[in-house]
Amino acid sequence: MPVCTLLTDFGQRDWYVAAMKGTLLRLAPGAVLVDITHEIDPGDVVAAGLVLAGAAPAFPTGTVHVAVVDPGVGSSRRMLAAGACGQLLVAPDNGLLTPLLGEDALVHAVERPDLHLDAPGRTFDGRDRFAPVAAALLLGASLESLGPLVDDALRAGAAPPTRDPQARRITGHVVHVDRYGTLITDVPAAWLDGERIAVARVGAVVVHRLATHYAALEPGVPALLVGSLGTLELTLRDASAAAATGVARGDVITIDVGASR
Amino acid sequence: MPVCTLLTDFGQRDWYVAAMKGTLLRLAPGAVLVDITHEIDPGDVVAAGLVLAGAAPAFPTGTVHVAVVDPGVGSSRRMLAAGACGQLLVAPDNGLLTPLLGEDALVHAVERPDLHLDAPGRTFDGRDRFAPVAAALLLGASLESLGPLVDDALRAGAAPPTRDPQARRITGHVVHVDRYGTLITDVPAAWLDGERIAVARVGAVVVHRLATHYAALEPGVPALLVGSLGTLELTLRDASAAAATGVARGDVITIDVGASR
Amino acid sequence: MPVCTLLTDFGQRDWYVAAMKGTLLRLAPGAVLVDITHEIDPGDVVAAGLVLAGAAPAFPTGTVHVAVVDPGVGSSRRMLAAGACGQLLVAPDNGLLTPLLGEDALVHAVERPDLHLDAPGRTFDGRDRFAPVAAALLLGASLESLGPLVDDALRAGAAPPTRDPQARRITGHVVHVDRYGTLITDVPAAWLDGERIAVARVGAVVVHRLATHYAALEPGVPALLVGSLGTLELTLRDASAAAATGVARGDVITIDVGASR
Repeated sequence: MPVCTLLTDFGQRDWYVAAMKGTLLRLAPGAVLVDITHEIDPGDVVAAGLVLAGAAPAFPTGTVHVAVVDPGVGSSRRMLAAGACGQLLVAPDNGLLTPLLGEDALVHAVERPDLHLDAPGRTFDGRDRFAPVAAALLLGASLESLGPLVDDALRAGAAPPTRDPQARRITGHVVHVDRYGTLITDVPAAWLDGERIAVARVGAVVVHRLATHYAALEPGVPALLVGSLGTLELTLRDASAAAATGVARGDVITIDVGASR
Repeated sequence: MPVCTLLTDFGQRDWYVAAMKGTLLRLAPGAVLVDITHEIDPGDVVAAGLVLAGAAPAFPTGTVHVAVVDPGVGSSRRMLAAGACGQLLVAPDNGLLTPLLGEDALVHAVERPDLHLDAPGRTFDGRDRFAPVAAALLLGASLESLGPLVDDALRAGAAPPTRDPQARRITGHVVHVDRYGTLITDVPAAWLDGERIAVARVGAVVVHRLATHYAALEPGVPALLVGSLGTLELTLRDASAAAATGVARGDVITIDVGASR
Repeated sequence: MPVCTLLTDFGQRDWYVAAMKGTLLRLAPGAVLVDITHEIDPGDVVAAGLVLAGAAPAFPTGTVHVAVVDPGVGSSRRMLAAGACGQLLVAPDNGLLTPLLGEDALVHAVERPDLHLDAPGRTFDGRDRFAPVAAALLLGASLESLGPLVDDALRAGAAPPTRDPQARRITGHVVHVDRYGTLITDVPAAWLDGERIAVARVGAVVVHRLATHYAALEPGVPALLVGSLGTLELTLRDASAAAATGVARGDVITIDVGASR
């Protein structure tokens, strides 16, 4: 039986996560359930997509990831089931899956009301609609059997990073602040092409080089590192870079590459 | 091997939950463990029962639910093991199980000191007494083998909701505030019998109808919905109804049904 | 497949824990994963060791415990793999394992760069180095195969408790404050040898006897109990002893044994 991950904004105080898990285990006995997180801020579909994209590549081929962050619960927005990078994704069509839907992704609109569970109200799609669809995939249903292929999945989130080869300038955004206060950007480290950073600016912070590893950092001095997603991140040794610099999610980072200073 | 859920007020910073899980896996290898929550406020047996009752129905038949919220740890209060709705429940006899013990429930007082684990102190019944009893059930022990049937399990919590057919008035309570600030009541939606709500009052909030689904709500206007437990809940689109209205757990809701206004 | 526990300071909002779990399940399919905690304060290796030592004894023989609290990530500090009390431990060589490494422990320095996963940056050893080593143990690798036996593992934490038989005085420390505000010390209850406590002092608190169990405590009066680790703990019925007394982790406890007062 494949692995099934869960990512929601349900928190961990209520019965919501457990009710989804019980439903999955009832419909797909033997499923191996793994939490990604349930601490997404309510309704923050962009953060949900980023966290899912950070975790998913580590999982075995064929893992089913069900993600429910869904301010539009009960509305007519579609449910999507997608295949990408050898993994299966189930989520509302509200932009959550944006960072996972590369060019190879196959996205289906789920049209299987026969899978919905009877329930008194229409407030808990995670239990009554998403869990049964994930269970169907765990039991071997094909994406095709869930509904038609679509090419208009909603996209959400900041504009992707850009690079201007002429000016040798890269522009991106801080896309996540982690528990340690590390400011994670969407700028692929590979874009540096092995060249030096002349100057990088995020808010009032100016950095002139890429550090090699965390333990090499000078305490108190913000530094850029290649993070675990392969993107650049601004960090501070033994302290929160976010708290120390005032930089926050959404802030712009610009990097001038290679020029001597 | 059946599923075993855990619900406690242990939090997630200490080793308490893990020590229970290790004990379960040591005594009942192969058990599939699922957390319901460990974030119950210390000693809040009423909330524990409500959250357990919200989650349990989703689980497979034969699931063992072990719930330890137990301000009286080490006292002489009994441990209960019960069968209800095809599921097995293990909890202290302090009212926690109240919402789960319907008329069909079979409640046994556990009298099996031979199952207790040796431990230096008497402060951790979750690990030393509850986990071994749950493990026995997971391994196939019958409820009868754990101790005698009893009919005096302690009850706790608010008085159940009432309806006065003459006056066409329903009275209930707010029994839970969830992560989103939704105010969940104990009033069964089925009591409306498909009739209109003339007026519902909770604190200073007055509502005149039942909304059909969350996405149909007018932002900023508190509304009543049928929630995922089948009871009425007061909610606010994209905001916390609890924060906006000041209504809290324990507050009374009254509903006049069907009369035109 | 054995059980594998995880203990980190990663928190539960990011993708870090899930990426470790995905890696474990990808490399060691069928592993049974159990969280100990991910709420260790960032970098607090002493707390990590204590929590791990509290949980580990409950687990089945052969369980693999992987603990990653590692302010020195990316530096040259070693990774350790140890066998102790029938269990297997994987952690950085930064003192985290101190409370688990008794005289019978076999500690190996892991020298298997071939197990490291390729990754863009060098910031996520939990996923890229610790998880693969734990997976190797789950798949049956011997400690010997991971690297040489060493006897210089780093030690961390407060000095161990002492007893002066002449003066009949025991001196120890508060080593943990749990969710309930219980102040857990490192003084083994066995050191009382069944004798009375004449006087115990922690901060401004003076206690004259050992209570038998929690439910026997007088509300509002701090009391000493034998805790679930077999050490003495200072507790307060239905309230936080830490909040009420101002005593904190690291504070000294002195106990005079047996003398009449």
